[in-house]
Amino acid sequence: MTMMHINAFTQCTPISQSIGQWRNPADVMSRGYTDLQVWTDLAKTLERGCIDALFFADIHGIYDGYAGNRDAAVRHAVQTPGADPLLLISALALSTRHLGFASTYSTTYHSPYECARTFSSLDHFTKGRIGFNVVTSYMKNAEDNGLGVMLPHDERYDRADEYLDVVYKLWEGSWDDAAVIRDGARNIHTVPERVHDIDHIGAYFSVRGPHMCEPSPQRTPVIYQAGASPRGIEFGAKHAEALFVGFTDPRNARERVTMIRERIAAHGRDPLSVKILAGVIPIVGDTDADAQRKYDDALQYVSPEGTFALFGGWTGVDLSRYGLDDRLDDIDSDGMQAIARGMRGKSMRDFYERIKLGSFSVKIIGSAAHVADTLEEWVDVGGVDGFNIMPVVQPGSHEDFVNAVIPELQRRGRFRTAYAGMTLREHYFGAGHTRVRDDHPAARYRANASK
Amino acid sequence: MTMMHINAFTQCTPISQSIGQWRNPADVMSRGYTDLQVWTDLAKTLERGCIDALFFADIHGIYDGYAGNRDAAVRHAVQTPGADPLLLISALALSTRHLGFASTYSTTYHSPYECARTFSSLDHFTKGRIGFNVVTSYMKNAEDNGLGVMLPHDERYDRADEYLDVVYKLWEGSWDDAAVIRDGARNIHTVPERVHDIDHIGAYFSVRGPHMCEPSPQRTPVIYQAGASPRGIEFGAKHAEALFVGFTDPRNARERVTMIRERIAAHGRDPLSVKILAGVIPIVGDTDADAQRKYDDALQYVSPEGTFALFGGWTGVDLSRYGLDDRLDDIDSDGMQAIARGMRGKSMRDFYERIKLGSFSVKIIGSAAHVADTLEEWVDVGGVDGFNIMPVVQPGSHEDFVNAVIPELQRRGRFRTAYAGMTLREHYFGAGHTRVRDDHPAARYRANASK
Repeated sequence: MTMMHINAFTQCTPISQSIGQWRNPADVMSRGYTDLQVWTDLAKTLERGCIDALFFADIHGIYDGYAGNRDAAVRHAVQTPGADPLLLISALALSTRHLGFASTYSTTYHSPYECARTFSSLDHFTKGRIGFNVVTSYMKNAEDNGLGVMLPHDERYDRADEYLDVVYKLWEGSWDDAAVIRDGARNIHTVPERVHDIDHIGAYFSVRGPHMCEPSPQRTPVIYQAGASPRGIEFGAKHAEALFVGFTDPRNARERVTMIRERIAAHGRDPLSVKILAGVIPIVGDTDADAQRKYDDALQYVSPEGTFALFGGWTGVDLSRYGLDDRLDDIDSDGMQAIARGMRGKSMRDFYERIKLGSFSVKIIGSAAHVADTLEEWVDVGGVDGFNIMPVVQPGSHEDFVNAVIPELQRRGRFRTAYAGMTLREHYFGAGHTRVRDDHPAARYRANASK
Repeated sequence: MTMMHINAFTQCTPISQSIGQWRNPADVMSRGYTDLQVWTDLAKTLERGCIDALFFADIHGIYDGYAGNRDAAVRHAVQTPGADPLLLISALALSTRHLGFASTYSTTYHSPYECARTFSSLDHFTKGRIGFNVVTSYMKNAEDNGLGVMLPHDERYDRADEYLDVVYKLWEGSWDDAAVIRDGARNIHTVPERVHDIDHIGAYFSVRGPHMCEPSPQRTPVIYQAGASPRGIEFGAKHAEALFVGFTDPRNARERVTMIRERIAAHGRDPLSVKILAGVIPIVGDTDADAQRKYDDALQYVSPEGTFALFGGWTGVDLSRYGLDDRLDDIDSDGMQAIARGMRGKSMRDFYERIKLGSFSVKIIGSAAHVADTLEEWVDVGGVDGFNIMPVVQPGSHEDFVNAVIPELQRRGRFRTAYAGMTLREHYFGAGHTRVRDDHPAARYRANASK
């Protein structure tokens, strides 16, 4: 029986994907996302539930594609304003002992040398509890703000491939395990011969090294990825240790999971060594009716304009140009057609009904038993390794999940009752597995590794 | 009687300027600089002493000029390895209520849009307790690592001038105070008309805006600067709210302080509105003899090689080429001659004796009464506003200062006995002064400011 892996999704912004919930009086996060206490409360709750990691989405810029401007995104607080989640993490690490933290970080907006320094620092400060969600970034707005040139989609991944090579070299190869010896008698803090240049010269980057940071517990942070395009899937199959996926149902998931695992194997990696996590929105009540009531309560704060501003940002389509009665099939956009593939013949209204709370992630509305049943089906039929839990109301959603669903899963032997190790990678791969596996592409750069 | 301002200096690395102290068994920081608990202990101590701010130096790279390589810097842990201090700050903010935090941050290695986001995030998370020490960076090593091109010295400051213009516009002008209204009834979280592009187009940067972050308590972080060259002093006179200076004695300080205040006035600013802080190394004992014993104890861990590796990094001179009996006057280097101006006719040995513990900062060795006497003289004769306290041993130096010297200064009415405000800027300028003064260059970009 497969044990599940469960991440809690969030973003350092009033509202991530449950557009409109800032109007919900219960939603403290929308007012308190800059308050450390709000975040440490969440982290402590998740650790009580033995959750693998708190996961931060992140963007740079403001969605400005609805009606050709950013007004809808601003008005409805569509992932705006925001703050930098990486700067929260040491406070959360101080408040917890086991919970992992993963953050989205763009290969377009930061140099690889800086990236390596950032994640090594956080891996030290968290004592090995950090993960890196690799994104290549998609917002035109960021380019206008001098954050780097946006390359064509597939080339972004070519560049990201080389970017990861550079950071792997810095993390794995630049400092030997035995570099820092602190030998006072011989007056040697660090053995110079054990700190190496990386001398990387490639198509996109030239980085001499050495890395600034001494080896941290995990060295390479746990690599997450969520690309859904063919090139994105290829990138994830090569690099990711945990993959975020969006599926409509367990049967559809099975097919996609099989395909993804084949791509992982094609990169010479154990296909089961990558944890595939489905994005889901559990709405949990004491009874199924109570859960439905919670869902209906949240719905009253939703509006099409904010929802479409977010989707327009993702798909590059200005959805203000369509009425609720327009047919999806008539929207001339690859991005939109890809998203709406399963909705042939449907209207914008149908589409809105589908995405209006938490976007495309599957909603699971019911008692803890019902939610646990559904998650088990996703694992047993769909073949996923676990879930990325998307909240509707914060606090509320994650707390309900930890208080009601986690104990149910634990009773069924489907979720850990205690953390087995101290580092994030051990949460995924078992006690002792703090470093990347030998079949991961970072491993080839290990200091003193045979080449 | 002038009240003093006091910062505690540190760096997220085994040893900042007291090279060799990693061999001192009392120095926990050299082994624990990646341990949050070590840092929160320090922060709590400083807050107990009502210290203005904990100040982080920072570098990107490794000093590699001694004997033409980095071996000496690595061997003696000369500010290497290191970690990113910005990523520590939320943990320290969570552990304190009043203490300010200031960090060095390079205008060469990060885009201004990213800089604005970083400091706004930290200003939110700390509730207005963040400062930004502006540096233009000087390490060739960083350029080899793809962190940006190193411009000629004066042009670096021209670029930094424009850089600050950009971040001021983002911090002060992009979001009106009343932009975020959270009006649930009208379904308006943020009023779109109150969020503005900055449309900056200059010689070095093009940044459209708007800022990603809503207004934080201070908006612009407290600006620190430490440039000592003519162009650096000009830059500081224009932008800084607190200036770090290195003087040899109070009489020498008076002359320089007068000159700096004239330059501040030349920029249309109140010359007393910039706090001038002298770097000093107090070594405090129960008696003068006890202090001398502490100093002698620390000296046994010092070595010329590590010390000269640091100085070579600062001055661009490979000091391995000179023996201890060589004369300073024979070293053909502008940087070295500038530093050694007061040491005509002296040898490298004399120079080493001078800098060997904590570089050029003045050492004040004695009882709390003696240290307090000396600090008072620096303020009353030298005209400085306060001090940047450089530690020798961590923990030890800062703790001795807080436990013995602060109460002595408080008894003399020279230092606060409680914080007057909650934000860092209020520590410097009094309760209620949370935002930049009207005569600061950032003020001209205030949202709705008359132009």
